[in-house]
Parts: sequence; structure tokens; C-alpha cells
Amino acid sequence: MSELDVVTLLAEISGIGRDERRGGYSRHVFTEDELWLREWFTGHARKLGLTVLPDGNGNLWAWWGTPGPDAVLAGSHLDSVPGGGAYDGPLGVASALAAVSRLRAAGEQPSRPLAVVVFAEEEGSRFGRACLGSRLACGQADPAQVRGLRDPDGVTFERAARYAGLDPAGLGPVRWAAEAAGFVELHVEQGRGLADLGQPVAVGTAILAHGRWRLEFTGEGNHAGTTRMAGRRDPVVATSRAVLAARDLALAADNAPADSNARATVGRAEIVPGGTNVIASAATLWMDCRAGDDAELATLVAEITEAARGAAAAEGCAVAVTQESLSPLVEFHAGLRDRIAALLPGAPLLATGAGHDAGILAEVIPTAMLFVRNPTGVSHAPGEAATDEDCRAGAGALTTVLRDLAFR
Amino acid sequence: MSELDVVTLLAEISGIGRDERRGGYSRHVFTEDELWLREWFTGHARKLGLTVLPDGNGNLWAWWGTPGPDAVLAGSHLDSVPGGGAYDGPLGVASALAAVSRLRAAGEQPSRPLAVVVFAEEEGSRFGRACLGSRLACGQADPAQVRGLRDPDGVTFERAARYAGLDPAGLGPVRWAAEAAGFVELHVEQGRGLADLGQPVAVGTAILAHGRWRLEFTGEGNHAGTTRMAGRRDPVVATSRAVLAARDLALAADNAPADSNARATVGRAEIVPGGTNVIASAATLWMDCRAGDDAELATLVAEITEAARGAAAAEGCAVAVTQESLSPLVEFHAGLRDRIAALLPGAPLLATGAGHDAGILAEVIPTAMLFVRNPTGVSHAPGEAATDEDCRAGAGALTTVLRDLAFR
Repeated sequence: MSELDVVTLLAEISGIGRDERRGGYSRHVFTEDELWLREWFTGHARKLGLTVLPDGNGNLWAWWGTPGPDAVLAGSHLDSVPGGGAYDGPLGVASALAAVSRLRAAGEQPSRPLAVVVFAEEEGSRFGRACLGSRLACGQADPAQVRGLRDPDGVTFERAARYAGLDPAGLGPVRWAAEAAGFVELHVEQGRGLADLGQPVAVGTAILAHGRWRLEFTGEGNHAGTTRMAGRRDPVVATSRAVLAARDLALAADNAPADSNARATVGRAEIVPGGTNVIASAATLWMDCRAGDDAELATLVAEITEAARGAAAAEGCAVAVTQESLSPLVEFHAGLRDRIAALLPGAPLLATGAGHDAGILAEVIPTAMLFVRNPTGVSHAPGEAATDEDCRAGAGALTTVLRDLAFR
Repeated sequence: MSELDVVTLLAEISGIGRDERRGGYSRHVFTEDELWLREWFTGHARKLGLTVLPDGNGNLWAWWGTPGPDAVLAGSHLDSVPGGGAYDGPLGVASALAAVSRLRAAGEQPSRPLAVVVFAEEEGSRFGRACLGSRLACGQADPAQVRGLRDPDGVTFERAARYAGLDPAGLGPVRWAAEAAGFVELHVEQGRGLADLGQPVAVGTAILAHGRWRLEFTGEGNHAGTTRMAGRRDPVVATSRAVLAARDLALAADNAPADSNARATVGRAEIVPGGTNVIASAATLWMDCRAGDDAELATLVAEITEAARGAAAAEGCAVAVTQESLSPLVEFHAGLRDRIAALLPGAPLLATGAGHDAGILAEVIPTAMLFVRNPTGVSHAPGEAATDEDCRAGAGALTTVLRDLAFR
């Protein structure tokens, strides 16, 4: 059997889940396209002689050796944001398959179990909660609450999971995660750090503090033509003020000190009722907010919340701010980081502003990340990129790391 | 046969098309609920002995007498905005049925044909173009273009019309409209004019100039966490600036001189790709704009367009502004207006900022409107109101008008 090549693997799925309207890919968890990717993964893993065992949360575990404690885990996710790139998620999964294939071909036997893991709903694009599969597996999400989460069409996680062939009664912590020796996630870089440094692969140091907030503005619906401009209580006007305030506050925080990693983004909104000739009665913003540490993030969100209240009040509207998720600063395991850095001479150390399943696993076991250079620096959009050469360099680095962790 | 009562008629349909999420009613053209309302109308018209003939555009014509030229037309529409009130449209249809019923009961025969008309897609809530049925009937819309209009789910007007049992080949001008002697539309008032004057019914004088514009902003999609705040090209920030500018410009125009009837409203928006952790690549606003006359409207829209370009440029984005529809100032037929005013002593004369099928018919035949008091002044929202007494006063006034126009 010839070795699997990461570039060839990605080419096999390059036609799956293309989003004609947005460009790029929309591969949301438990949809036909994402289920097709799972079949593709399962097929390759079986051909490599791995035993594929789904857990009750929609995650897939492909085992080399007997499933059990003290295992080395590698993997990432297959789902995408709406209109995302080709590498965010699949590069880590394909690299892990390629690494296992190369280790298999070398004829060695691992000294401990090795599993390639595919985590479900990493992006939170369908049910609104990022890293849902890894959170469930690590006991960081309440199964009862998750079962009731709804997608934008009103479909519950429970119903979607059944559609994917899961028994939603099985949601919850997985011993394989808690008892593993460590987890390594390879991921395309989501910025220009490596491009600026002229290096193909980096070792992760930390994930910045981040979270999601929902800002629900309520005003007074009325007729767009017959209602005078003065005295309107238009929540769309209030949200517009709030968007600008959030941007200005995050910009100021990001610039002082230079690149403090403060971010505030509104990428999703909903207007009710949503008619062109209707002053809205309500409008909701979803805000993604990040910062260099937990205290900075709390300060930024408090400032934005206050500004949103002012924006609402100025328009005679009310606003309710709800935290949908919060992921404190994660610093990856220092010993594992240093061990990997020693294996990859010249690879720089980089922090990331993006959330990852590795950030969840890091709460329970030693965890590390590898990043692969992204020449455009673009992420969560079709312009995300990685050269074939860099993808192969990443898979090679992961092979080196897994050989060290699971074969000595 | 007992006479039909307008209040009873409206009660019969009070459970149809309720919108649990938005409140009020969502009765969009050619949906199950709107088709049910058509059945309801057809059933009552047939029981009154009228001959119901659909035209090729989805409008219903219920004839008393032989369909033909020189007819008197009365009616309105049954569709609603998303989450609209109970009276906008159905009050005019039910009042016309009640008026015919009373004239029937009096045993007289009209001296010319009389038809109750239900126009399709008055609100433009499904296919984006207001007064679509009356525009088609009056030769003011291109059938080929209308066939290709799409609803938010991508369904074409052609496909929706087929679903409703229409042959889309039949779209186009209807002689019954062009050759009629006149049209009278009764409608709930969409402001507090009558409430402030303490009167139940008014005679319409004019429809202010109004139209719809689409503002498409394009920027650069990227990751919400890894992309620095400085240098972003975020179209959601640009649209927020544009919303505030449009509001401020319309507010200034509306106040100087006092109540010049200038309006600018954004009640609908779409963000692409629409993920919480994604800086958008594009964002579209739909803007409803109105003014006291055509020149004022043109000036206001030009100012807002310039402000939108500035908003886009300030964020490194581009914007394309497209006029989706434009309805110049309509002044109703002076002779018909004065004749009706003489029949309804004490009824004030009122202009309206809302568009109506009557504004389309007014281009081709003498047309008039009656307004019924709305104590809340709210429109296009669940809070729209009319008392039973005022509804009956409106139907009584319409009866008086139709007796004068069709029986002498």
C-alpha cells in the first residue's frame, strides 16, 4: 500500500460542500456534505487498519492499537464556517492520516495507543457553540442543554444528531479524552505570522481569551412611510451605533499597547420582522470578542456592553446582552511544547487568536498545536491558503512528533 | 340571506397566517395561508352571486354584472408584511364584500358593472416589488422580468404562481383595469391623522413619493479572531455608518420644514457569509425612502447615496446602490375626490406616506381612497388597530360611495 499524501487527500474532498453563493466551503455539522466527509475519513482510516469508533457526541476516533488510557491523540475537525476555506480543519485531519500512513509504512508498532480524532461542530456554525464535540467529550458542556440547541432553521441538535445516525442519549464525557497522554492538533495558521517570518511550520504557545455575546435590541415596529423620523424607536439604528462603538473600542484596545490582540466583530445579525417597508421591532447582533488575557477581555466586553446600552437608550430602545460562550486564555503544556520545539529546529513559537478543540483538550490533558503557513493570512473565507509544499512540511512535522510521542 | 358584517368577516380570518415568532400576521403571496384567504374571499363572493374571475397576474375579480368596460372597482389586498397587522389589506376587501352585500340586500341593480378586486403581492414582502399585481394589470411591470423575480428562498415568481394554480404565460395588462370608470380602495390609516382629528373616516388626497433602494457593500472576509482591528475592510461596519447617515439625513429633511414627510428606513439586511466568528465579505441593506414630492425624494436619495459611498470608502469597502422601485407622488383624481367628500360630510382630506394599489390604478383611471381611523397609528406591525365601530363606519362610507358611483 502506497503512503497517503496530505495534498492528495485534500484534493479528494475539494469538491465537497462548495458554497456557490458565498464562495469557499459550507460544511456544517451533520449535513449531507459533512457526513460525506466523515465517510471519506472512515474509509481511509479503515484502509490504514485503524478501528473507527464514533463516540456519543459525533466525534470519530480512529484507533491504532487497543482503545484505552495513555493514548496519543492527533486530529482536528471537518466542519467549516459558512463560506470557509479548504484547510481550516481538514488540513489537520488529512495530516494525521498521512502521518499514520507513513508510520505504518515504516513497519514500527506504537508503544502506546494512537488515535486520529475528528471533532464535531468545531466552528459552532450550525448550533452556535464552538468546539461543541470536544467540549462534550471533555465534560465541558451540559448534554441536556446541547440536545436542545437549535440551528437557524429551528432543528435541534438532538434531531440533527439522530439524522446523522447518533443516539443523543449517548452525549457526554468520553474517558478516552480524559485518560489520554496528550493531544496534538495541526492547523493552518489564521494570520500572517509564519509568512512574515518566512517559516513553513510553527509550534503553538497559547490561545487568546475569546467568547461570543448576543445583543438583543428591542424597539417599536411601525410603517416605514407613515411614521415620522423624530420619535422612532428603531432597533436597526441602535444596532448600527453599537457596531460602530464595538469596533472603535476594540480598535483602541488593540492599538494600545500595539497589537494587544483585542478584537470585536459582528458577523451575524437578525432583524425582526425584516420587511423593507417596516421599521423593525427587534434586531439581534452576534458579537465575537477576543483579547490577550482574560481581564482585558472582560474589560472590553464591559465597555461594549455599556456602549450598547447607551446606543439603545439614545434610540428609545432596550438591549439585553447575553454571553453565549467564553473561553479563557489557554496556555499550552510547557513541557510538551518544549519537547516538540526541540524536534522541529527552527520552527517559531506562535500564539493564536482563534479558538480550537486543542484549547478544550488542554484543560484535561497535555496538548500542543502545530501551525502551517498561510501566505494570504486570510481565514474563515475562501481566500485562506497553504502551498502544497507547506502542507507536506506540516504533515512531516506531525509525523516526527507522533513518532516521538507514541513510539518511544 | 343576512347581510355580511365587516367585523364578522375579519373575525373569520383572524386565525389565518398568524406569525408566532414576530407576532401579528405573515400572509405572503401564493403561500398556503394567503391561498386560504383567497378561497375565503371567493367563497363569500360566490355566495353574494358574484362571478369570480382570476386574471393572469394572481389578482381576483368578483363581478356583479357582466365583466367589461366602464365598471366601478373596489377592493384592496390580502397579503401582509412579515408580522403585520390584521387590517392592512383585509379591511378594504372585507369592507367591499360588506358593501356589496348591503347593496344586494337593498334589491337594486347597478347601472354599470361593479367588481370587488383583490390585488396580489401589494406589500412586495415575498418578491421585493410592492403593488406587483396591480402594476402587472396596469401594464407597469414587465411580465418577463416579474416571472424571474425570486423570493428569499430562491423560488421564482413563475414557480410560485404555478404553485398557486396560475399559468405564468398569462402575466400582463388586464383590459378590465384600463377600461374601468374608477377604483375606490378603503384602507386602515397608517398614522394618527384621524385619531388626532377625532374622526372615523377620511378621504385620500395623495400618496407621497416613495421607493426602494438596495445598497450592496463589499469588503474583505476574514477571521474574527486573528485579523487585527486596524486595516479591516468590514462591510458590516460600513453598513452601520450608512444606516446612521440615512437616518440623520431623513430626520433633518423631515424637520425642515416641519414634517416634510421625508423618510428613510432600513428594515432588512443580509450579511454574507453570516458567521459569528467571521468578518463579513459583503453586506446588503434594503432602504425604503419617501418624501413630499418627487424632487425632494431624489435629493434625499442622492444625499444618502453619497453618504453610503463615504461610509464604504472610510472602511475600505465598495458600495453599489440600485433602485428597486420608484413611485412618484400620486395625486388622486380631483373630481372623484370632491364627489366622495360631498357624500361623506365631515370626513377630513388626508394624504398618506404609504404606497397602495390605488396609486398604481390612479395612473390609468380615476381613483380614490378612504381611510379608517387607527387609534395606535401603528402600521406594518402587530400593534396596528381599528375599532369595530370604525370598521363599520368605513364599510358604511364605502357603501354610500359605491351606491353613488355604480347605481346612478
